[in-house]
Amino acid sequence: MGTATDELLEVLGDDIVTVGGISSRYHTDWTGVAPCSPVALVRPRTTEQVATALSICNVHRHPVVAQGGMTGLTGAAVPQPGDVALSLERLVGVEEIDPAAATMTVLAGTTLEAAQQAALDAGFELTYDLGARGSCTVGGNVATNAGGNRVIQYGMARDHVLGLEVVLADGTVVTSLNKLLKNNAGYDVKQLFIGSEGTLGVVTRVVLRLRPAPASRTTALLACPDYAAVLVVLDRFRRAAPNLTAFEVMWPSYYWMLAERRGGVTPPIDIGDGRGVLVELSGNDATADERLVEGLVTSAIDEAVVTDAFIARSQADTDAIWGMREAGPMDGIAGMCHFDIGLPTGSIDEFVAEARRRLREVWPDVVSFAFGHIGDSNLHFNATIDPVNEPSDPSIAHRMEEIVYGTVAEWGGSISAEHGIGTIKKPYLHHSRSEAELDVMRRIKAALDPHHILNPGKVL
Amino acid sequence: MGTATDELLEVLGDDIVTVGGISSRYHTDWTGVAPCSPVALVRPRTTEQVATALSICNVHRHPVVAQGGMTGLTGAAVPQPGDVALSLERLVGVEEIDPAAATMTVLAGTTLEAAQQAALDAGFELTYDLGARGSCTVGGNVATNAGGNRVIQYGMARDHVLGLEVVLADGTVVTSLNKLLKNNAGYDVKQLFIGSEGTLGVVTRVVLRLRPAPASRTTALLACPDYAAVLVVLDRFRRAAPNLTAFEVMWPSYYWMLAERRGGVTPPIDIGDGRGVLVELSGNDATADERLVEGLVTSAIDEAVVTDAFIARSQADTDAIWGMREAGPMDGIAGMCHFDIGLPTGSIDEFVAEARRRLREVWPDVVSFAFGHIGDSNLHFNATIDPVNEPSDPSIAHRMEEIVYGTVAEWGGSISAEHGIGTIKKPYLHHSRSEAELDVMRRIKAALDPHHILNPGKVL
Repeated sequence: MGTATDELLEVLGDDIVTVGGISSRYHTDWTGVAPCSPVALVRPRTTEQVATALSICNVHRHPVVAQGGMTGLTGAAVPQPGDVALSLERLVGVEEIDPAAATMTVLAGTTLEAAQQAALDAGFELTYDLGARGSCTVGGNVATNAGGNRVIQYGMARDHVLGLEVVLADGTVVTSLNKLLKNNAGYDVKQLFIGSEGTLGVVTRVVLRLRPAPASRTTALLACPDYAAVLVVLDRFRRAAPNLTAFEVMWPSYYWMLAERRGGVTPPIDIGDGRGVLVELSGNDATADERLVEGLVTSAIDEAVVTDAFIARSQADTDAIWGMREAGPMDGIAGMCHFDIGLPTGSIDEFVAEARRRLREVWPDVVSFAFGHIGDSNLHFNATIDPVNEPSDPSIAHRMEEIVYGTVAEWGGSISAEHGIGTIKKPYLHHSRSEAELDVMRRIKAALDPHHILNPGKVL
Repeated sequence: MGTATDELLEVLGDDIVTVGGISSRYHTDWTGVAPCSPVALVRPRTTEQVATALSICNVHRHPVVAQGGMTGLTGAAVPQPGDVALSLERLVGVEEIDPAAATMTVLAGTTLEAAQQAALDAGFELTYDLGARGSCTVGGNVATNAGGNRVIQYGMARDHVLGLEVVLADGTVVTSLNKLLKNNAGYDVKQLFIGSEGTLGVVTRVVLRLRPAPASRTTALLACPDYAAVLVVLDRFRRAAPNLTAFEVMWPSYYWMLAERRGGVTPPIDIGDGRGVLVELSGNDATADERLVEGLVTSAIDEAVVTDAFIARSQADTDAIWGMREAGPMDGIAGMCHFDIGLPTGSIDEFVAEARRRLREVWPDVVSFAFGHIGDSNLHFNATIDPVNEPSDPSIAHRMEEIVYGTVAEWGGSISAEHGIGTIKKPYLHHSRSEAELDVMRRIKAALDPHHILNPGKVL
């Protein structure tokens, strides 16, 4: 018997299997971390070929990393030395849109953007959305339980998945292409694979829930004097606007840094040392939604929980508001450590203050930026000790992680709100999960992948 | 070493453990199926006592059935001969409501109604709701992934669960009392226990997501000439009313039977041989919602997809409309077989016609009633061959199940939309789940409960 690579090539052929000269696209993800060429690249055109490839690797006890759009931020799809890479990029297409059920069935390698567009063309909306939409794939979104914008209204990728087709480590195809909103016939096994980062099975097809496309979006930017005021405003909007689709908060350092980096633009409103809040309503009656926002803002100003506000009246206004929130301008800042943290909504501001205090104790000149999907209990926190030059010492990032994740643990938070664990956050998983929880995860892993061929070294 | 019962009594004492003379309340559920006294009844006051009880039973390889409010409809909480019953009824209380996070932490034995009331008292709503609310428990709702009213807007019990505390078969307490909407730190292990009907672990605490309580409900009853018109109306309401919280459809036999059984009341509208549709919007502006419903109804009448309509203008009107939908009057009909079926929304009417045709081939005088949460792809279908006398032959129910569930399988449906599997639907699980899916369920069961002490004979 030859190696796994030999057998893959022999059984699947060189159209499907590439050995040697594998493009760097398959070496790392958007973090650029630890690039490494897989020993072979398998690009199946059918679920059956996925099953054949996994079955061969399982017999050879050969490790396999599944790959989608390679836009991950935790290294989960980055090959470890010796891995076979299994790219789903040829399993592409929207197979069905069922208007009565409001579902779409999509092959795993389809980009999120293509799936979103197909939904729109049919008069529906696929209601999860990420910045990486043009490159990330639906299969990858499911494997990592992607979050992104609009979670406050529609939930994570998990909340959009009605059915899955998954291939297990031994090549068994588990077809659960359920289109029903309600199905209590036995355990809901698809839940296991969602967010398991390719360690329990490989997703090949997905049934997604669709919603009617809204006719309008109403967007506003508000200045709150402090975080207590932010919480009051969140409560008011949650109660009055069941169609609230975004509630994004910016701390001053982030807000003013963005203004400066966007060519020194004057922001639409002055938040001073308060908090900037972006709100968005999605609906079918722009006039009614504008009136609702105006009413809420007026009474918030009367109560002094909002000090200034800008309500979009045009697409240009909307773009200006979202421009104040977009994270793109962070890209050019050197030595930035990115933290994607889940925290109890009520204590996020205290957490930011405490994390900053602890970092300053070690590095008095540390610069940090805080913003996030506060309505979803999700903070993005970024810090650097030298925003101009590339950091010379990788141990700084490690020490920063120790401090920040340690604080997260004390706050009862999660070290990953939406990005997953992969390799990058693995050393810190114990901060967010107890030994009993990790033990359950290990039992599940052993039950579904007894030879540990699926993405070994990731998550657990 | 004595028996499990001896050791339970010795370690936990007779305040917690009852042997002999166990009330019939613990013998069966709302189906009344196969009543059987457990050999011992354990009623712990703490999670630690639950853990002790399970640990003892696990060492003795003694089977345990967990019990909540005993309102189930599939026999999942009914003891099998020899079982120890573990009732969660003393683990009662709302431990915390966190207004900023919009969550509540509840002990498993708390009734749904008590939890709903506590949420309301704090200005929030617990947005799942069942007829059994006064007796069923939050732990039981989680263990069965309960559905009920308002799933179309807010989802099943699963969609309300943010965190769980669960005791495994070996007594390990897994505490995952997450309050975060987003938490991608490793596998989402709580999903496994939701809907597993006490076969994978015993739920002791639950963190539930809350939403702001709506200020108003707007209810209407519509007559559609046929099911195609129902689908058009569903699409119109879904698109125009993001706050649609109920969309319930009644077939004529059900509609007219209800009118007759409610003392021959004249229904608010005449649906003829069409379909009756109940719609409900929940919001904060009753006037705007009424105007929206009026507008939708007017244009639906213009398009001839609605032939008559009654919009509630008072609580009495609302009660009259919900009275036309409530299933209570079904109770007195003899020999009724109840089916809780998931079906693709678009083909539910064809399914009803075909199931009726197949039943009539065997029993020309069969009477059947169809209604359901159509917006959730959930049909309730009930049939009897003798609505006056109790059935003499239990094999009739069995033959009816064979016919109906066989048709469900051909239609790509689910034999259980919201009630679960228990013992009653277990023989038919293969109609809705493939061998590969069942194999994954068995692997999970073996991983978490290797000695099969948790509710053996149920689900799998």
